Amino acid sequence: MIQLGILGGGQLAQMLTQAAITLGVETVIFERSPDSPAGRRTQREVVGAWTDAAALESFAVQCDLVTLENEFVDASVLQQLEARGLEVYPSSATLAVIQDKLLQKQRIAAAGLALPPFRAVATPDDVLRAAHDYGWPLILKARREGYDGYGNATLRTGVDVVPAWERLTYGGRQLLVEAFVPFMHELAVMILRGRDGAMQAYPVVETVQQNHICHMVRAPAPVAPAVAAHAVVLAQQAVQAVNGVGIFGVELFVLADGTVLYNEMAPRPHNSGHYTIEGCVTSQFENHLRAVLGWPLGATRLRAPAVVMVNLLGQRNGPAHPQGIRAALAVDGAHVHLYGKREVRVGRKMGHVTVLATSLAEAEVLARQAADQVEL
Amino acid sequence: MIQLGILGGGQLAQMLTQAAITLGVETVIFERSPDSPAGRRTQREVVGAWTDAAALESFAVQCDLVTLENEFVDASVLQQLEARGLEVYPSSATLAVIQDKLLQKQRIAAAGLALPPFRAVATPDDVLRAAHDYGWPLILKARREGYDGYGNATLRTGVDVVPAWERLTYGGRQLLVEAFVPFMHELAVMILRGRDGAMQAYPVVETVQQNHICHMVRAPAPVAPAVAAHAVVLAQQAVQAVNGVGIFGVELFVLADGTVLYNEMAPRPHNSGHYTIEGCVTSQFENHLRAVLGWPLGATRLRAPAVVMVNLLGQRNGPAHPQGIRAALAVDGAHVHLYGKREVRVGRKMGHVTVLATSLAEAEVLARQAADQVEL
Repeated sequence: MIQLGILGGGQLAQMLTQAAITLGVETVIFERSPDSPAGRRTQREVVGAWTDAAALESFAVQCDLVTLENEFVDASVLQQLEARGLEVYPSSATLAVIQDKLLQKQRIAAAGLALPPFRAVATPDDVLRAAHDYGWPLILKARREGYDGYGNATLRTGVDVVPAWERLTYGGRQLLVEAFVPFMHELAVMILRGRDGAMQAYPVVETVQQNHICHMVRAPAPVAPAVAAHAVVLAQQAVQAVNGVGIFGVELFVLADGTVLYNEMAPRPHNSGHYTIEGCVTSQFENHLRAVLGWPLGATRLRAPAVVMVNLLGQRNGPAHPQGIRAALAVDGAHVHLYGKREVRVGRKMGHVTVLATSLAEAEVLARQAADQVEL
Repeated sequence: MIQLGILGGGQLAQMLTQAAITLGVETVIFERSPDSPAGRRTQREVVGAWTDAAALESFAVQCDLVTLENEFVDASVLQQLEARGLEVYPSSATLAVIQDKLLQKQRIAAAGLALPPFRAVATPDDVLRAAHDYGWPLILKARREGYDGYGNATLRTGVDVVPAWERLTYGGRQLLVEAFVPFMHELAVMILRGRDGAMQAYPVVETVQQNHICHMVRAPAPVAPAVAAHAVVLAQQAVQAVNGVGIFGVELFVLADGTVLYNEMAPRPHNSGHYTIEGCVTSQFENHLRAVLGWPLGATRLRAPAVVMVNLLGQRNGPAHPQGIRAALAVDGAHVHLYGKREVRVGRKMGHVTVLATSLAEAEVLARQAADQVEL
């Protein structure tokens, strides 16, 4: 059996493991702490820091090839694995560009793709100068390790700059600033790219955020066909620009006039693609495995006219004791997914619900109805 | 997290584990040998004979409740688990009746359900007497532990009796004999029964056997609606007759005049229900978990007009090195499942392929096309 190493043991690694089981592939999970969602689903669990040479060694010797569920692993770790002759997808070169949002945006801009104006900032004064050029509001972002709104701040006036600067530079992080775009929709597209460069796109979806956290995904996105087609082309060009192999979640903005702008990408399965598990012929997880293994890519078409996914987010902090699962499962056609995290935090992704239906409205009603039953 | 013990670690336990991951349920696998398909997908693997008291103890202490993937575990083992206060589904009482085909058929007959005539036989002369009453051919069967044709013999004339008798009574096994039924179709229905007695049926399917091994499943079965409706009623009555909780695979015969007869049942997920993973709203595996956990049962309807499953059977004996997987995955819409068994045997179930389509003919062409690529 092929032994596939995964850097990270959270829900994405867990769902990759489920897909790996179907394909007869064994997973090796490398995570900082034991008993992670994916770590407990294998006997090949390596516990330690990714930067711990001994732990990395004990991981590497068990793997035929390596992928990741988390772009926060430093690209140098991937380089060490590549240096031993292991195939790693996405590659260290791809990851190095993506995990630094400044480098990522520079690469995308260099490829000629449309995105909101951005620049590196080294001081609060740089932010004020950017505001002069771009206008308020502005988005201040950490170049690395931001997710779900951690690492971002929206600056509405000059008085917001210093508090946000102090919060975001904590630990010596470098920042960038980006113009606020008055978007109508946030879209996402999962792009699959094989080792040979062949690409497939999943349907374009709309993501609905609350407090910078993805709350709901509507597939297909309720946008004009030309907008969706443009989104796919832009997303494919973006993945090509970073020479990506595997599945990539590309996030986009749509303006009132239908303009599509690049926002950012994740070099891995993505929350906006969880709907594909039941909603598409091949899930993003199986297709990621197919791509990194060099196997034929699976069909990405929808199985139903409309699919809606609603996240189950933590509502408090402490040990997790999900309630209301039975009531959620009683909703006809609701696919309830729980990630098995031992600890809940406010806003933490603890699971999700997917519903297939004949219209987005119908799917959304049922998905919300099920999700509303769950207390986390 | 709920810890669900599974007696057995083969592909059925593996697919139950995949469904358990989605529901946030942890599995504890108890199998005779290490590195079983399901055993390697958990850190809670207990290796030993089910009859080994120490192994059973170390299994029991890890479980909140227990189910099985294999009806060959002796009902007394389930009784011991029940005696410690563990909930076990299906129960020892249900299993005791099903695992002895004579008791099973007696129970079904006592419930007033139609089945081919049968009787216990203690000597070859008893078989000849049965032939006098039922006519040739006759089916001679071991009362316990037969599967995939192991434990069965078709007797065409009196000279077949003694060789079959000697083969089947090996190890002191008791036998029964049953009239051969000139069936037109073999049908199967997966019946789900909750702890509260609520039942749901999956669509009736046709099973196509080769050498007594299920080769292909067509869903829905190409039979008249009245025949399918009768099959569902008969299957539900059969599961009720054994007071089953969980999923049950009920096999049936259809005669030329449309008569439906009970054949046998399995108290667990069943090969004829693998098509439900992609083909139905809720898979047989998730629904088995829901039933044994006392959770609401999920919708059993088809997701497509037609679904065909083809088994991937071993073609030789030795260590397994499946070939042709890439070519199989290249067939559009083919869902390829591999069970990760280390050893292949001729006729052993090593995986399966499922295809959803708008007609059975189309689904069958694609499923066979994919399955034909795989060399085992």
